[in-house]
Amino acid sequence: MADYREMWKKLNINLEKHDQLCEVLPELYGSVYLQQEDRPEGMNYFNYVVSEVHGARIQELEEHKKNGGKVIGTFCVFVPDEVILATGALGVGLCAGSQFWIEDGEKVLPKNLCPLIKAFTGAKIGATCPYFQSCDMLVGETTCDGKKKAWELLNEYTPVHVMDLPQMKREKDYTMWKDEIRIFIDKMEQLTGNKVTVENLKEAIKLANKKRRALKRLYDLRKHKPSPISGLDCLLISQIAFYDDVNRFVDNVNKLCDELEERIKKGQAKEKKRLMITGTPMALPNWKIHSIIENLGAEIVVEETCTGTRYFENEVCEDGETLDDLIDNLARRYLNINCACFTPNSGRIDDILRYAKEYDVDGVIDYNLSFCHTYAVEDKSIRDMLKDKNIPVMHIETDYSTEDSGQIKTRVEAFLEMI
Amino acid sequence: MADYREMWKKLNINLEKHDQLCEVLPELYGSVYLQQEDRPEGMNYFNYVVSEVHGARIQELEEHKKNGGKVIGTFCVFVPDEVILATGALGVGLCAGSQFWIEDGEKVLPKNLCPLIKAFTGAKIGATCPYFQSCDMLVGETTCDGKKKAWELLNEYTPVHVMDLPQMKREKDYTMWKDEIRIFIDKMEQLTGNKVTVENLKEAIKLANKKRRALKRLYDLRKHKPSPISGLDCLLISQIAFYDDVNRFVDNVNKLCDELEERIKKGQAKEKKRLMITGTPMALPNWKIHSIIENLGAEIVVEETCTGTRYFENEVCEDGETLDDLIDNLARRYLNINCACFTPNSGRIDDILRYAKEYDVDGVIDYNLSFCHTYAVEDKSIRDMLKDKNIPVMHIETDYSTEDSGQIKTRVEAFLEMI
Ligand code: SF4
Ligand code: SF4
Repeated sequence: MADYREMWKKLNINLEKHDQLCEVLPELYGSVYLQQEDRPEGMNYFNYVVSEVHGARIQELEEHKKNGGKVIGTFCVFVPDEVILATGALGVGLCAGSQFWIEDGEKVLPKNLCPLIKAFTGAKIGATCPYFQSCDMLVGETTCDGKKKAWELLNEYTPVHVMDLPQMKREKDYTMWKDEIRIFIDKMEQLTGNKVTVENLKEAIKLANKKRRALKRLYDLRKHKPSPISGLDCLLISQIAFYDDVNRFVDNVNKLCDELEERIKKGQAKEKKRLMITGTPMALPNWKIHSIIENLGAEIVVEETCTGTRYFENEVCEDGETLDDLIDNLARRYLNINCACFTPNSGRIDDILRYAKEYDVDGVIDYNLSFCHTYAVEDKSIRDMLKDKNIPVMHIETDYSTEDSGQIKTRVEAFLEMI
Repeated sequence: MADYREMWKKLNINLEKHDQLCEVLPELYGSVYLQQEDRPEGMNYFNYVVSEVHGARIQELEEHKKNGGKVIGTFCVFVPDEVILATGALGVGLCAGSQFWIEDGEKVLPKNLCPLIKAFTGAKIGATCPYFQSCDMLVGETTCDGKKKAWELLNEYTPVHVMDLPQMKREKDYTMWKDEIRIFIDKMEQLTGNKVTVENLKEAIKLANKKRRALKRLYDLRKHKPSPISGLDCLLISQIAFYDDVNRFVDNVNKLCDELEERIKKGQAKEKKRLMITGTPMALPNWKIHSIIENLGAEIVVEETCTGTRYFENEVCEDGETLDDLIDNLARRYLNINCACFTPNSGRIDDILRYAKEYDVDGVIDYNLSFCHTYAVEDKSIRDMLKDKNIPVMHIETDYSTEDSGQIKTRVEAFLEMI
């Protein structure tokens, strides 16, 4: 592997601390991923991406910047990638899933806050994440109280542009969201010096849709019984989708899907209990729940989360003659995401029921990162509705630590026996 | 005292449970309030109001309803009372401050949620609060994640209208907030059958301003050293402001202020350490922190909270020839409240520094209801800024239980010795 220390030094990484992080990850990856049996060949590409997570991809971002391009960090599936792509910038998802960053995060944030927020804040203030260090600008949004206020702290370290997401989905909220997208376009134009045009925005929409279609194809294959790929592997692919080069990513997902189709044709071994995960996102390298569940012999076949279906469902309409048309298309697709940050959010219930049928699941894990209020409160109606439909459901609230892993394992075991 | 059981029965109160609540309150009030020395005569009115909290005032609301009037429950200082008053309805603040309701709240809400939200939800679902039972409609807002999602649960019990509060204070957000006020006016017109006109809205603005002015007068008197009234008594008055008859309340506050002015003229005994509280609201009967602090011989002279200055500071401009003018005035006054739900919220820092000077405080208690993310995250910059200005500050995060009272007392004692 190349030596990236010079690059990291230039990025003002805290090298000593970063070394500690670099030691943790391969070990974790080995124990969670590489021990899986009978993995598809196509996963080799994603193994490689993980092994180069702070190396090759960062080098690409730095190359891009050397050529005058910009790098934009985002945290949420509501920020329209298309705008970033249209201005010739590269977007990277900065949601952070490692316990490693929590300690630094808690230096400036309350302990009883969602681990995702503490982790990304810790990654920045500890200067241990090269993605953060590469970014010319961060784009926040007002999806939850914790994030909304964390931007104020991050803004002391890097410029943060905040998009105000409406909290309802009335017609006036679409108009307001369109306006936020327009403001974001202005901001990106200023930053990059590149104008957003009908042509480049349309092209960006097509590119982003291509990514959505590849992920959709992958997810659709999981509907087969048994699924030709593990939930763990799919989760990893979703996580990588947030920061990899789009075209290369799409090629590799499609290549993998070709292989999975072959697998399905050949027919496969024993069926497993099929589970859906619904709830809060699982950012890289948060593989905790998938790992516990799949080690117990069940398979996760669909994630109704931001690192799952919410990321790729519904393409942006590619028709439109004017910028306003295209912005309207963006606003409609993005505001249609069924996140618990909206009130009401009844669309999510419909999604869950539809997936339960389509993926033919035996049960649902309602997964909640600790202290995420919107999902925690909404979960009651989700559970009530699932019980109503006789779909077994189990609630797991947890953070990134491994302290409760034993307890979760015991509970999942009991749940799997029951269903 | 009159027998209100028939009335409560008609309101579908859970009588047995409500009896338990009725036993707790007088005892608590006696031990916290009535043991204070040398209270102003004018507090007798407020003693009476508390003693009749589930009686005389509820009877008035019921009378009002018999005459065709409506009763509207609110939870937040952002909901414009003026609109409610203009349609001839009565507004009552439903924020709940008793541990009594937590148990019922936790039946449908996660435990790790702000006690205020759990308490008001518990009050409704347990049917133990006659104010809730009297309401024809509740008005929620999107000030925090917990409340935003709790409306969905409450809506299963009573109709809830939700106002979407913008999360920033740009010019477009004023426009959006105006629009929300317009939608609220429509809703109130439908509910009451009464039109909002320039005349009745202007009158309502004047009435609400009168209340603001009375509270401001009271707070200004606290600037004297020593304050002629305890923090406990002022807190109670602020809490009562949310549900009492406006004119009667104003008269009694002004009468009290006359008496306090006399007291000041006569000169008074020993000075005490003067503290400001800043942070989250203290709903009736949450007197925990004031009681601990004032029992230790210090005095609280100002609350930069929703049950303090945020409730009455800045009057609504009374000029304007059209409804649009007046709605604009409402939007500007209300959106100017410096709540942590906005990003950024730098106005609050300015307020705190100004109050520290005006009220000449020796220290600040930065008070946070557990799990209130917006205030908890913002508190860091508040504390940093106060330390910067050499103003001693102490952070207290707590809920409604008395478990931590001893520990808080010890910490406050140490803080008072230090300042
Ligand atoms: S999981 Fe919930 S609390 Fe955490 S960042 Fe997402 S929305 Fe916010
Ligand atoms: S104190 Fe905070 S969490 Fe509680 S209701 Fe108010 S804003 Fe929401």
